[in-house]
Amino acid sequence: MLSQMGIRARQAAAQLALSGANVRNRALGLIAQGLHDRQDMVLQANMEDMLAAADLSQAMRDRLLLTDKRLDDMAEAVLAIRSQSDPLHHTLYEDTRPNGLHIRRMPAPLGVIAVIYEARPNVTLDAAAMCLKSGNAAILRGGKEALRSNAALTMLVQDACEEAGLPRDCVQLVEDTSRDSALALMRLRGYVDLLVPRGGHGLIQSALQNATVPVLETGEGVCHVYVDRMADPQMALDIVVNAKASRPSVCNAAECLLIHRDAADALLPAIGRALSDKGVELRGDEAACSLLPQAIPATQEDWGQEFNDLILAVRVVNSLDEALQHIARYGTKHSEAIVTADADAAQRFLREVDAAAVYHNASTRFTDGGEFGFGAEIGIATQKLHCRGPVDIKALCTYKYVIEGEGQIR
Amino acid sequence: MLSQMGIRARQAAAQLALSGANVRNRALGLIAQGLHDRQDMVLQANMEDMLAAADLSQAMRDRLLLTDKRLDDMAEAVLAIRSQSDPLHHTLYEDTRPNGLHIRRMPAPLGVIAVIYEARPNVTLDAAAMCLKSGNAAILRGGKEALRSNAALTMLVQDACEEAGLPRDCVQLVEDTSRDSALALMRLRGYVDLLVPRGGHGLIQSALQNATVPVLETGEGVCHVYVDRMADPQMALDIVVNAKASRPSVCNAAECLLIHRDAADALLPAIGRALSDKGVELRGDEAACSLLPQAIPATQEDWGQEFNDLILAVRVVNSLDEALQHIARYGTKHSEAIVTADADAAQRFLREVDAAAVYHNASTRFTDGGEFGFGAEIGIATQKLHCRGPVDIKALCTYKYVIEGEGQIR
Repeated sequence: MLSQMGIRARQAAAQLALSGANVRNRALGLIAQGLHDRQDMVLQANMEDMLAAADLSQAMRDRLLLTDKRLDDMAEAVLAIRSQSDPLHHTLYEDTRPNGLHIRRMPAPLGVIAVIYEARPNVTLDAAAMCLKSGNAAILRGGKEALRSNAALTMLVQDACEEAGLPRDCVQLVEDTSRDSALALMRLRGYVDLLVPRGGHGLIQSALQNATVPVLETGEGVCHVYVDRMADPQMALDIVVNAKASRPSVCNAAECLLIHRDAADALLPAIGRALSDKGVELRGDEAACSLLPQAIPATQEDWGQEFNDLILAVRVVNSLDEALQHIARYGTKHSEAIVTADADAAQRFLREVDAAAVYHNASTRFTDGGEFGFGAEIGIATQKLHCRGPVDIKALCTYKYVIEGEGQIR
Repeated sequence: MLSQMGIRARQAAAQLALSGANVRNRALGLIAQGLHDRQDMVLQANMEDMLAAADLSQAMRDRLLLTDKRLDDMAEAVLAIRSQSDPLHHTLYEDTRPNGLHIRRMPAPLGVIAVIYEARPNVTLDAAAMCLKSGNAAILRGGKEALRSNAALTMLVQDACEEAGLPRDCVQLVEDTSRDSALALMRLRGYVDLLVPRGGHGLIQSALQNATVPVLETGEGVCHVYVDRMADPQMALDIVVNAKASRPSVCNAAECLLIHRDAADALLPAIGRALSDKGVELRGDEAACSLLPQAIPATQEDWGQEFNDLILAVRVVNSLDEALQHIARYGTKHSEAIVTADADAAQRFLREVDAAAVYHNASTRFTDGGEFGFGAEIGIATQKLHCRGPVDIKALCTYKYVIEGEGQIR
């Protein structure tokens, strides 16, 4: 029963909120050690998942697969989270009011964080480690194809918690992977303080429509690169190719190239060739297609489409304004870039585009907790409340006001 | 049509986001001036509302009523908001990464803020002024009994916006005050960036159940004062009486007194007499009633009840733990206070109670933007995301990352 898990999570969260950094860090160290010492157990469970998942696409099987190398990487990631500074138990702000009241803003864990995700066992570890580091209890519901792997990893995490003196219920796995269990988790009000749906458009929309608990929108990235008429040709080519082709499956990859009409003749053919060399399929508007013999005509659905693949929509625009309008209409408020040597155009773009990250002369691919210097992240937030951009361990915390007086009344 | 209002609000929000503080402050100054110069127009509209609202309770009529004094106070409040520092156009954080990327976190308005509230015309002005100051467009839907007053005030605000060079659509009033319009506003996804339901439990629950736009939970305050066994008697009495009786209708007023068994015999009779002198009805558990001849027995519904009235639930507890459990069960994460001379008990209470504001030896009534030194607030947030406690103009903003490079790729 999910509500029973919720009750246990709340109890664990109360203990976690009071725990010192040393205890939480000890649990993280034990998790990393467990990933080394108990590789066989985890790989065995994963092999069973893989055998049962023969029908999945190659890409999905690759996401599901664990190897000793991948477990080592996961252990490294856990140790990196351990090494971050403690987000709790320090003063964020303080003030003594004229009446003598002493007010402090102190960080506090959110409490219980639920994560719904696909058949990616590494997310189990990432989410568990980030929640532990930030003093939150976790309720994890991964995709059904990864259930055995997730159960093995969760047991390993729970054993580490117990050995460190924390409740096993700090991290719980929902073993019912039905759609109903996802819906029930979205409505576990009073028990879940934050729901992070980590998956595609459908999952996020379902959470937004159905959830009664607070939802963090992450990961939908329809990112644009706008090549202005004053763009440096080589820089424009490098940034477009990098933003699209360096890792097309991730949310900070570009899905659409906008190029100013005055730059298109000179730059677009070379950019197109470089993209084609990387295997990128181009879908252009009429003006783009006239300059790109390899392009196919874009349909209306290609604008605002998150391909997550080696496909790029290409549109020639008449002005910066037209680029801004396109982005306002089709972007997902994730990451947007302008390439230009024109400082005024850059400033307008940076000011007027409404997105978590706006770039001048750099690739959208930098929107990432590590690249920003924030450490691990549980996703890139595309909403505006609470946290925008990389959702780091600090963003898994709230705060409370602690007010100390000597009998003040109002 | 609400979606048409949404489109217009988005357009106004885009202009507001780029506007300088001087323009927004000018609009605020003109609003204050309008409240003086056009008193007759506003008071006439309010009189028509009052005439039509003869059936309302005295308390509701008092909330609906405008007077020249109240308009002056509203103008003062607008000027106080104008005098706050600009929440936009400055750098919150910056860093230059090892690869040379320069990252800045810059404040940005949320965009379009919708407020649903009761028949309180002053909220129209408060919300409009706070939204304008923070660069947000507002869609306001007040209670139907205040429609004429709200329309007059909105016209005054829109005239001020126009005169200051801002779009009239910066502030729009929903004139359809049906339940359907509230529901539609809760689901105006893509147009509304934040919904603030300012009202009772029913409205907030309706928003949480029905909204697909982000909701800020505010104002539900079941606040407790816990008098520990080591409490100073006079301080305990003063704080309890102040927390309950100084303004019982507001959300930071106390609804329940918890008192340690060891202190009850000595302190509760005097506290009870002082409360009775203020006209407070006491509803006690058995132990409390045995010490309070004027008390009536509390029912289960009295625990966790937001009376918003001169009524106080009173319970004798055996320990600090029992007090903490009671608060965890019945509190609304608003404001909770302990009165004690025992530093250890105080520290446990401050650490373990999960609420926006936790007090040691002070009244819960201090949870207020002005008292905290934050200036105007649109409510007290009882949720954990984005903003906790007083929702000030900074909390009506988000941020974005502005990243400037010289061609960096990843």
